[in-house]
Amino acid sequence: MATTATATKETDGAGALDRLIAATLPEMEKVNALILARADSHVDMVPELARYLIEAGGKRLRPMLTVAAALLVGKSNGDHVKFAAAVEFLHNATLLHDDVVDESDMRRGRPAARMVWGNQASVLVGDFLLGQAFMMMVETANVPALNVIAKAATIIAEGEVFQLSKAGDLTTTAEDYRVVIGAKTATLFEAATEVGAMAGGADEAGRTALRVYGRELGLAFQLVDDVLDYRGEAGKMGKNSGDDLREGKMTLPVILAIAECNPAEREIITNSLGKADANDAALQQVVAILNRYNTLSRTLQQADAHVQAARDALAPLPASEMKTLLSDIAEFYVSRAY
Amino acid sequence: MATTATATKETDGAGALDRLIAATLPEMEKVNALILARADSHVDMVPELARYLIEAGGKRLRPMLTVAAALLVGKSNGDHVKFAAAVEFLHNATLLHDDVVDESDMRRGRPAARMVWGNQASVLVGDFLLGQAFMMMVETANVPALNVIAKAATIIAEGEVFQLSKAGDLTTTAEDYRVVIGAKTATLFEAATEVGAMAGGADEAGRTALRVYGRELGLAFQLVDDVLDYRGEAGKMGKNSGDDLREGKMTLPVILAIAECNPAEREIITNSLGKADANDAALQQVVAILNRYNTLSRTLQQADAHVQAARDALAPLPASEMKTLLSDIAEFYVSRAY
Repeated sequence: MATTATATKETDGAGALDRLIAATLPEMEKVNALILARADSHVDMVPELARYLIEAGGKRLRPMLTVAAALLVGKSNGDHVKFAAAVEFLHNATLLHDDVVDESDMRRGRPAARMVWGNQASVLVGDFLLGQAFMMMVETANVPALNVIAKAATIIAEGEVFQLSKAGDLTTTAEDYRVVIGAKTATLFEAATEVGAMAGGADEAGRTALRVYGRELGLAFQLVDDVLDYRGEAGKMGKNSGDDLREGKMTLPVILAIAECNPAEREIITNSLGKADANDAALQQVVAILNRYNTLSRTLQQADAHVQAARDALAPLPASEMKTLLSDIAEFYVSRAY
Repeated sequence: MATTATATKETDGAGALDRLIAATLPEMEKVNALILARADSHVDMVPELARYLIEAGGKRLRPMLTVAAALLVGKSNGDHVKFAAAVEFLHNATLLHDDVVDESDMRRGRPAARMVWGNQASVLVGDFLLGQAFMMMVETANVPALNVIAKAATIIAEGEVFQLSKAGDLTTTAEDYRVVIGAKTATLFEAATEVGAMAGGADEAGRTALRVYGRELGLAFQLVDDVLDYRGEAGKMGKNSGDDLREGKMTLPVILAIAECNPAEREIITNSLGKADANDAALQQVVAILNRYNTLSRTLQQADAHVQAARDALAPLPASEMKTLLSDIAEFYVSRAY
């Protein structure tokens, strides 16, 4: 997509994504081939379900970050392809289990795998993908990178349990929320860029720079996602607007509003929070309260700060086209919400 | 438990278990301490749920096999403790997910974790335990052992999907069944003894001997378990008699009967197979058919053959007290069904 002098912030960002896709394309083709190969099994239901989810796609942002980090740092011995595929498998395993936990109907713009193959198969194929992720990591015999991924898998699960334990809990604080998104989302972004840096042969400073970049980008990404849940359109997001509210998820826009609103407003929120059958009118009432206290825009301000931190983290790295791209892509992921 | 000259086959076996427990006790105390420590988390629900399952106990047979294999082979550098704990965590993760998949009410003689904390927490804490299992493996930096465990995790999940895809499928063959139990049960026994051998510094022959021993023991164990499901008492087994039938699980006793019985008998079986509400009278009718075709005793004969193969596998290893114990314990696990 060509950018012009009159381009908006959003089209600049979209251009950044296109440029990142182009810059990582040859390596991502190897990653995609490996992903499809490793989703195979003599048990038919495994590749059917796994490929249904994998081929629905998304942007493959996390493995693309692994590849980009490796390319930014230097020459990889080839491990970055396995690392990237492992990161995507870990992500997809998490999605399969999340959809069971959240009883989600939709994922990536089509019915969730659990709606087609059932919860049981979604749990077990998630386990299979997790196992394959570790198999690919083991094949590289890179123990420090294995440590990053094993730790990430553990922290992500822990974060999901914490989120579950806080569902519908009105005493949830902004700090609790920070812990949840740090664990469930930022950890995988951080692992993705860190193992990419390791595959590229980064020194300690380079590894730290890319790890912090990934973490800050992940925090920004989740903050934006949690805003879009109150703004997005179902078709565009691949999930339904208002899902977080109906699932009782205590995201920052709601936490900030509950802390400040009056008892009547609070009752409007709690009448819909965690209610699977909350209708659009009820959702709109809640959104009106969030807007009254500017909690969506305040959440986006926090996302902006993390984008800035992500860009700052790259500062120690020498200038390169890939460095510029990673900096721009961070901007793009917040621009989605403007 | 003292054995006497007039001891039955069963009490001999029980004596073997007591002797194995005694011989592995000091090392198993380290394993148990590590298991409890690694089930900890700043998210309260994680240790609550994990310890509920872990402390319900069972015999810790799989980690005990890891320790026994390490002690049999030689001196360990200490890795056997982490390997054993990782094996138990992988096992417990599988149990948590299985109980969600099977909608089981009971586990180890008390309500399944999912009945107390829900399916959602069971899925996520299972993922946490799986992550911790890999963390412990990574800490040893033993890549070949990591490979064994990662492969085992993948194959177990694949076997569970295969079993799920065959639920209630009357065309399931004895060979399909062999594939299922080879994957879902024997793989972890095999991994348990193999990584134990590796921790003990086994040579290739010793590693193979203990790997094959574990696999054959695992096959025997599952065959016996599938017989006991039609014979056991709920309190003793920690699960309900007839569960496999109600869940539509195609185990060998049913597969063999369906292949040989007449249409009327077949209808009696299919009327209960996969029917969660099949009552005890219906179960007894099915058991009568299994006994008419001797499929429970024929299944036990196969278990006996695997016990023999397990004992034979140990032949290349030098004589020792631990070798005798492992040989005797194989006998014990079939004796449960006599």
